[in-house]
Amino acid sequence: MPQADPAATDGTLDVTTEPPSRRGLVGVSAGVAAGLLAGAAGTYAATRADGHTGASATGAPSLADISGQVPFRGAHQAGIITPAQDRMHFVALDVITDDADVLRDLLTAWTAAAERMTYGAEAAPGGSVGGGPYKVPTDTGEALDLPPSGLTVTIGYGPSLFDKRFGLADRKPAALQELPGFVGDDLDPAKSGGDLCIQACANDPQVAVHAVRNLIRLGLGTVSVRWSQLGFGRTSSTSHTQKTPRNLFGFKDGTNNLMAEDGAALDEHVWIGAADVPGPAGWAAGGSYLVARRIRMHIEVWDRTNLQEQEDIFGRGKLEGQPLGQKKEFDTIDFAAKRMDGQPAIPAVSHIALAHSSNLDGVRILRRGYNFTDGSDGQGHLDAGLFFIAFMRDAHKQFVPMQRALAAKDVLNEYIEHTGSALFLCPPGLADNQDWGTQLFAS
Amino acid sequence: MPQADPAATDGTLDVTTEPPSRRGLVGVSAGVAAGLLAGAAGTYAATRADGHTGASATGAPSLADISGQVPFRGAHQAGIITPAQDRMHFVALDVITDDADVLRDLLTAWTAAAERMTYGAEAAPGGSVGGGPYKVPTDTGEALDLPPSGLTVTIGYGPSLFDKRFGLADRKPAALQELPGFVGDDLDPAKSGGDLCIQACANDPQVAVHAVRNLIRLGLGTVSVRWSQLGFGRTSSTSHTQKTPRNLFGFKDGTNNLMAEDGAALDEHVWIGAADVPGPAGWAAGGSYLVARRIRMHIEVWDRTNLQEQEDIFGRGKLEGQPLGQKKEFDTIDFAAKRMDGQPAIPAVSHIALAHSSNLDGVRILRRGYNFTDGSDGQGHLDAGLFFIAFMRDAHKQFVPMQRALAAKDVLNEYIEHTGSALFLCPPGLADNQDWGTQLFAS
Repeated sequence: MPQADPAATDGTLDVTTEPPSRRGLVGVSAGVAAGLLAGAAGTYAATRADGHTGASATGAPSLADISGQVPFRGAHQAGIITPAQDRMHFVALDVITDDADVLRDLLTAWTAAAERMTYGAEAAPGGSVGGGPYKVPTDTGEALDLPPSGLTVTIGYGPSLFDKRFGLADRKPAALQELPGFVGDDLDPAKSGGDLCIQACANDPQVAVHAVRNLIRLGLGTVSVRWSQLGFGRTSSTSHTQKTPRNLFGFKDGTNNLMAEDGAALDEHVWIGAADVPGPAGWAAGGSYLVARRIRMHIEVWDRTNLQEQEDIFGRGKLEGQPLGQKKEFDTIDFAAKRMDGQPAIPAVSHIALAHSSNLDGVRILRRGYNFTDGSDGQGHLDAGLFFIAFMRDAHKQFVPMQRALAAKDVLNEYIEHTGSALFLCPPGLADNQDWGTQLFAS
Repeated sequence: MPQADPAATDGTLDVTTEPPSRRGLVGVSAGVAAGLLAGAAGTYAATRADGHTGASATGAPSLADISGQVPFRGAHQAGIITPAQDRMHFVALDVITDDADVLRDLLTAWTAAAERMTYGAEAAPGGSVGGGPYKVPTDTGEALDLPPSGLTVTIGYGPSLFDKRFGLADRKPAALQELPGFVGDDLDPAKSGGDLCIQACANDPQVAVHAVRNLIRLGLGTVSVRWSQLGFGRTSSTSHTQKTPRNLFGFKDGTNNLMAEDGAALDEHVWIGAADVPGPAGWAAGGSYLVARRIRMHIEVWDRTNLQEQEDIFGRGKLEGQPLGQKKEFDTIDFAAKRMDGQPAIPAVSHIALAHSSNLDGVRILRRGYNFTDGSDGQGHLDAGLFFIAFMRDAHKQFVPMQRALAAKDVLNEYIEHTGSALFLCPPGLADNQDWGTQLFAS
């Protein structure tokens, strides 16, 4: 068994004696690796999954060598407009210390671990085995043999984090206020709120779960798990390169979603602008608000309705996903189109009518939700539904009016129930040598 | 929107006007399709995902055309020695009718739906949209655009199904008796037992969830969900062609598992023999017993132990998975090997020592479990662990002695807790024109 002595213990990637990379970055030249690891010091020694450190090969890597890695740093956090990965593990945490330094240090440690895992390394130098037999491993090991799988780790801060505990009150953006209640809400406090959240998305659920687990582990004694949600299938595309997926009602969802390619629209609807956060809250510019809603679907009731009723409720065809009255999924929605009987092709209380920007003074959001099934409900049915996640520039100006309209009129309400809710501020992306701790605490 | 009138409504695949196949079997010639659909009458008209029935192409399909489909019929059920797929959805159900005919009819309907979904069709003719606007869709639709993804649907019957309700008492194999309690069990009745179970495994979780959901839906009013479990990552290989995966303790699991290629050993340890089920229970020959144990892992405690302690507890190296004292994962286990200090390289109370056939009078089982994480435990931790599934010829002669040894001595018990338990008889595979209803009820 290899027992390499980790040279670096400060959480950076400057690890020429890096213990076994879990994902065998063999053949990646040092220069390219440094590029991949923008913001991390030094080079990433190529190592094999069998634990033997090998010399870096010369020459450029093939695309396959670097596939599945999403850049960690940039103007915005990864995991927002990153083309939605197939699987998700989301956790909300409460901070159980009152010591701001301890919290800041955890955020700093999380940054290093999240960046490492994004690039396919273990959570910390040493990892599962490199610390030797008499040390507690610094990575839990269950992703040792798995590729990066497009992992993104996105952090968010709840309104409660900016209470008086940590001296952050003046850095709180004005719009970071808890969501109001909505008609029909049946929220479980145990599945709502939280001081912090971590959204890990990947194309392999084991990689997403591994990331969340290792970050929780780093926070032992500092944070406590409030709730957690596994999503097994994405319900939105966030790039025009992706095929629209289906929700558990069997409908294509998010056809008219904001997409990664919609640069100007993202600035208008997703990213917090400098003018939105004057004064000491300015650090949050470039961030985005994350709204999470756990939406239980009463699929047994839905499954008893006929096709036309289902399509009228959504305002789209089930097979193609076309707006009613049109032919193809991406055909322009025409709310003026009529059926043969003179009625609107798209009912005014359909989901797409109520949620459409033209009926909401131009409001749009970027949806990035996941299907879930969490065992049974104790009454003979699956506990299944949609874990709705959306990103936006101001939840109170975007999600709140949209959800008010939906809560009041959406025919879909007969079939769904909001059982969890949370709002988080996702800070902007990190510059080189910046971390979440220094970013939040300005030190 | 296509509104094909389904010609067949009896659940068979004889559907020349088959409504949109969810998975576009374009280019599969009729002859090959018939071969794929062994046991189903007629041919499978190639249809496109856009709903337009196309003429079958001539010529043999490429391997890619037929990949991801696991044969549904055969001597044994699929999903036992099928190379373990990456994801799983498991459900245990109680029968809520006392009418044997209703149960038998459901089992017959389940067979047709399971076979269809295995081959990439929707749950029933008509499917999501083919029944027309005024009909309730016969498939829930969320897998419409997804490939077969290696789906297998495996059915099992609990001891309670053979009580006096359905007249099945004389067809009950003698070994189908509830498992005894074990030292340390902390079983939740709401996550244990059940009259029936369905194990759906696939490489796409949405496909597995879709299959379970549609079978539950067919059983509305006849069966009720007792418990359900989503598994996000396989923890065993069941074929020498597979790489050994890792459990949430970070260790490779199931290295010495029984494998699909081990024909004689499967007959000895997995398949129920004719001599095991004399008399009217003889119908069960060729089946297998499925033991399910929901094992919560106290990962926070585990994560505080040093590497050597972890390896001593498992009896294997963490990185390679080699038996202690050896070098490579598949090296022969040598319980006589000594460390430098003269102590056994593999501690006598290690997991592999206690569970090894040489210490259990030759007992072996075929493991086929999955990692899970089910939200939080309400005490600040993830509720995560291993959903242990194993198949064997006689649970009372194989699992029971093994688990007694483990429950009494396994050092791993400090880190785990069995919170759910169930035993099911998985009947043998289906012959052509046989279904689960006629097989169970002999009519």
